[in-house]
Amino acid sequence: MTEKTALTPATHTTPPAKFSHGVKKGNILQVAGQVGFLPAVEGQAPTPAGPTLREQTLQTFANVKAILEEGGASWDDVMMMRVYLTDVDHFAEMNEIYNAYFEEQGLKAPASARTTVYVGLPAGLLIEIDALAVLDA
Amino acid sequence: MTEKTALTPATHTTPPAKFSHGVKKGNILQVAGQVGFLPAVEGQAPTPAGPTLREQTLQTFANVKAILEEGGASWDDVMMMRVYLTDVDHFAEMNEIYNAYFEEQGLKAPASARTTVYVGLPAGLLIEIDALAVLDA
Amino acid sequence: MTEKTALTPATHTTPPAKFSHGVKKGNILQVAGQVGFLPAVEGQAPTPAGPTLREQTLQTFANVKAILEEGGASWDDVMMMRVYLTDVDHFAEMNEIYNAYFEEQGLKAPASARTTVYVGLPAGLLIEIDALAVLDA
Repeated sequence: MTEKTALTPATHTTPPAKFSHGVKKGNILQVAGQVGFLPAVEGQAPTPAGPTLREQTLQTFANVKAILEEGGASWDDVMMMRVYLTDVDHFAEMNEIYNAYFEEQGLKAPASARTTVYVGLPAGLLIEIDALAVLDA
Repeated sequence: MTEKTALTPATHTTPPAKFSHGVKKGNILQVAGQVGFLPAVEGQAPTPAGPTLREQTLQTFANVKAILEEGGASWDDVMMMRVYLTDVDHFAEMNEIYNAYFEEQGLKAPASARTTVYVGLPAGLLIEIDALAVLDA
Repeated sequence: MTEKTALTPATHTTPPAKFSHGVKKGNILQVAGQVGFLPAVEGQAPTPAGPTLREQTLQTFANVKAILEEGGASWDDVMMMRVYLTDVDHFAEMNEIYNAYFEEQGLKAPASARTTVYVGLPAGLLIEIDALAVLDA
């Protein structure tokens, strides 16, 4: 029996439906699509970190990282990140923010794989990221 | 040697290309993108369950579930669902249908992670869902 | 300890950000989103194989395959391919190219699962594909 556990950082806003922010089973950890919402404030609707791509991207990274850590994982365990942007013109700026962020994180393992595509997102959101991690056996 | 097997429910329409509706290898089970097509009828083109989001979503769930079951898995084993909608305005309604459906299913394990994005789909289709499951070791 | 390794075919263009074209950890291999870029030429920007869907699709397959092989895997190990197209009208032609390509590859295992959705991609690119593989244990 391999137990499946939900990963729910205390700071995260409640998901808009019956899904988990992250789940872990055996050595597989899946992070649900995260957006740039600030830590939850009781009685307040989820609020983006700001209107800019930079603010939302950094908050999204923080939200993904909190779920990884809740599952005993780190960026080094991430195999794949899916980056959803709303505008092709944001690609270069997102990459700059992405590179600077991961430089700061001081990864010890090779960087994750990544796919970036351009989709629709709810109004006001410029980026969404999900991640698949494989933990050490 | 870990065998890779195709998961092909008898009721499913033939895929439009050389891919499998589902595959299983070791404890990993992947469900291909499912849409709201009714069970196949010989000599008839694949037909959506109806024009509404509700009809298509419930049929899509049934189609995903049939593949899980074909592989000896259940919703409880699902780690990640990717929900592709064509219209941001469908988000709230899809969540209602989603919550009611999974309430009925009586999950024993924590709910799967999920990402929802808004993309283009072939004419007449409002939703597509794929799923990654990890079976008990 | 399960080592995570980067899969970087010598012919591949440098990724536009700090991510890996592929990573492998334990028996899981993830291929990043590949497009139809020709093998890298020093001092030259990444160049698509051509303007047509056929040229780009075949080059994309070659790019995915090179990463699989760099990780000691083959198409037979692929569980899931995500195909991102920019135009619903390309679906039928992509499927023809897809079927002919995989017929030629002489798969021994069942075909991978697949999801195809329609998104935005950078100007000039008509298709992007990523892949998840599970290697023999």
